[in-house]
Amino acid sequence: MISLIALSALAAASAQPLADIQADALEDEIAWEILVDLTTEVGPRLGGTSAEARARAWSVERLNALGFSNVRVEEFTMPTWVRGEEKARVLGDHSQELIVTALGNSGSTGIDGIKAQVVGYDSYADFLAAPASEQQGKIVFIWHDMTPTQDGSSYSAFGGARFFGPAEASRRGAAAILVKSIGTDNDRLPHTGMTNFGDATPIPAGALSVPDAGQLRRLLALGKPITIDLLMTPQQIGPQTSGNVIAEVPGRDPDAKKVLVACHLDSWDNAPGVFDDGAGCAIVAAAAKRIMDMGQPERTIEIVWYGAEEVGIHGGRDFAARHDGTDYHVVAESDFGADRVWRVDTNIGENRKDEADRLRAALAPLGIVPGSYTSAGGADIGPLMQEGAPGLSLRQDGTRYFDLHHTANDTLDKVDRDQFQQNVAAWTTMLMVMAGPVNEE
Amino acid sequence: MISLIALSALAAASAQPLADIQADALEDEIAWEILVDLTTEVGPRLGGTSAEARARAWSVERLNALGFSNVRVEEFTMPTWVRGEEKARVLGDHSQELIVTALGNSGSTGIDGIKAQVVGYDSYADFLAAPASEQQGKIVFIWHDMTPTQDGSSYSAFGGARFFGPAEASRRGAAAILVKSIGTDNDRLPHTGMTNFGDATPIPAGALSVPDAGQLRRLLALGKPITIDLLMTPQQIGPQTSGNVIAEVPGRDPDAKKVLVACHLDSWDNAPGVFDDGAGCAIVAAAAKRIMDMGQPERTIEIVWYGAEEVGIHGGRDFAARHDGTDYHVVAESDFGADRVWRVDTNIGENRKDEADRLRAALAPLGIVPGSYTSAGGADIGPLMQEGAPGLSLRQDGTRYFDLHHTANDTLDKVDRDQFQQNVAAWTTMLMVMAGPVNEE
Repeated sequence: MISLIALSALAAASAQPLADIQADALEDEIAWEILVDLTTEVGPRLGGTSAEARARAWSVERLNALGFSNVRVEEFTMPTWVRGEEKARVLGDHSQELIVTALGNSGSTGIDGIKAQVVGYDSYADFLAAPASEQQGKIVFIWHDMTPTQDGSSYSAFGGARFFGPAEASRRGAAAILVKSIGTDNDRLPHTGMTNFGDATPIPAGALSVPDAGQLRRLLALGKPITIDLLMTPQQIGPQTSGNVIAEVPGRDPDAKKVLVACHLDSWDNAPGVFDDGAGCAIVAAAAKRIMDMGQPERTIEIVWYGAEEVGIHGGRDFAARHDGTDYHVVAESDFGADRVWRVDTNIGENRKDEADRLRAALAPLGIVPGSYTSAGGADIGPLMQEGAPGLSLRQDGTRYFDLHHTANDTLDKVDRDQFQQNVAAWTTMLMVMAGPVNEE
Repeated sequence: MISLIALSALAAASAQPLADIQADALEDEIAWEILVDLTTEVGPRLGGTSAEARARAWSVERLNALGFSNVRVEEFTMPTWVRGEEKARVLGDHSQELIVTALGNSGSTGIDGIKAQVVGYDSYADFLAAPASEQQGKIVFIWHDMTPTQDGSSYSAFGGARFFGPAEASRRGAAAILVKSIGTDNDRLPHTGMTNFGDATPIPAGALSVPDAGQLRRLLALGKPITIDLLMTPQQIGPQTSGNVIAEVPGRDPDAKKVLVACHLDSWDNAPGVFDDGAGCAIVAAAAKRIMDMGQPERTIEIVWYGAEEVGIHGGRDFAARHDGTDYHVVAESDFGADRVWRVDTNIGENRKDEADRLRAALAPLGIVPGSYTSAGGADIGPLMQEGAPGLSLRQDGTRYFDLHHTANDTLDKVDRDQFQQNVAAWTTMLMVMAGPVNEE
């Protein structure tokens, strides 16, 4: 019975039936235009670089052109790491190149590179269980068995080699570490991503593409010592400027708590960041624009395109330091690609279960299943949620997300427009429910 | 009626029914072992390099270990080109890297690279139709609309930009040429391959990956001048040694014309050459081994793993210069990947139509359709066929061949073992028919 009541209430909130609003949003062109133009005209936009600064300037111009209010940038500074040269070659009888990329925060081999024997492990657990004595002075190589999952949970389950391996290898005295890319494809395009050394001394830390990791594993299985000549020359270049780009759809009630919709504007340096996360920026802005074009919502909608997420969630932290999480009715982030929303999770409190149910009912016609009432998240909105901001998540299908994630292959041609536009419909629906009734203009 | 007679005749030629021979071959392990070991232990093996020399040494050892007779290398020398650095960057407002690789025989930009404006064309025909005056001093960029075809015919139909574009751009005074990779994938892995300058002066000639070509095309569509900083430093290093590796299954009748089965051992330098053409070498050797293990065929089977095919069919030409095409009952080459054989073509003469029909009937249970009676081919066996050697072709499914062809992605993980082993069954069947009755040992 809840869903019928909910849908009636929602329909009453707009002169247009929800089904029509969703049908129109499924044909959305606004998001695609934003995505094409950002990722073509700016391209890759690593946090802290001049490319990210160009992306902010582009964003301010575009968000103004779309008619949003109070478009502005909140700048901040953050430590910045940049990639250098990167090459790996197996020496000796089986001489051949392996395709490698440095992980964010990787140390440098110096311009002469390092030559060291490889010691390989089938999993991160095996690496941890082995004695440091067999790793000292060696290049540690860690395999894993990650496979695709719709909810993306295999990323955290198998990502340990990248997240924690380099610091641990450093503590154990390894010369360097190479991990099998934390990815689910078979392309010779390695997956970069941050690692953190904490108080350990940075050592060269790279990811081999999945096929190259397989090649190295087969070479090690021959049972003879394998030596690699590794060159990676990234650098820490000190504090640089980044910033969050903010825009608004002003609500009718200036005292009402706001609805924040977010993405991150920065990308890794090896791709124009279409799935990660140009798509998210395009989706949330297109949904807000659709609401704005229908009339004025009760609550102000705040659009935040965060800066410098990939390299340490710097934008999310800066925003939470300047703004009060309790000013928000709900916060939500799109940052898991361009494939369809398949599940809705909320964490807006037991006292707002009816509102969560209205949202679930409204999303059902888009094929979206109800998920949790008590969990939601997003890298950049995490700090706001820790301050008490209620959150919700429109979970995207992650089955192929980790084929592309943090690789050079994160490009426009990978987008399935039907799925991408279903996201716009889902976010428009969410804003209909959460930003309150829209007054027709 | 032909097929029933043919199958009876064939069954009589062996104590084992054909169906059993094919069923066993579909479970073949020999080819997979050859393919894994060659492409892992040697890796990439560009013609004329020390890597190709390692491949020849590996091959002699393996072909001897498999029990073949008269295993030997026929060496030759050939002009050799090697890759250098390669980078491309769009300058100015849309600054971003494009992924490029040099085409074989490309000229060098010099170590400082060149900066020039891009002039783009939607097809090779459009480039030809445009006046040289708009190309002089520019970087010519050529798009195309290649899509996959089962018979691979889109390669020649759309490959002109690579095959002929660089020489023509040189004659027209272009500073350099970048072609959209002659490929059907959407990976950021450019497709290399030879180009020939003939009497034109070599200019820098590269292939952009398919997504990068799309990105450049969108940037040009913005309508502003696009300048690229291009660095490619390949070199011609003069004559180097390559060679053909030859092995035999001796026939009962030393005076009978021989059956030659071929592949090429060399690969491009950017991948271990699994589809192109480690698979072919593994398939033909495994089929010959299976025949040898059943007994002695009437005709001698000659296995030729050609050298230096990619870089100019040097092995095929050297072999034809030393051997007489009329000594062969039939010649055949496997050089189109690892996917299934779908069609059989013959060009063995009108007077041997019955033999062609026996072959067609014998292959039908493997799902192989009859093709032409008057055409067959293969890059390396082409020169022998010009000398009068009858040819046949077991045509492989090329639907995904040009996803991988001449890219770094030509790796083991791409092999579908069922399809790969169907090739072994097809070649074993062909040898049953063409090398004459096998005497059980």
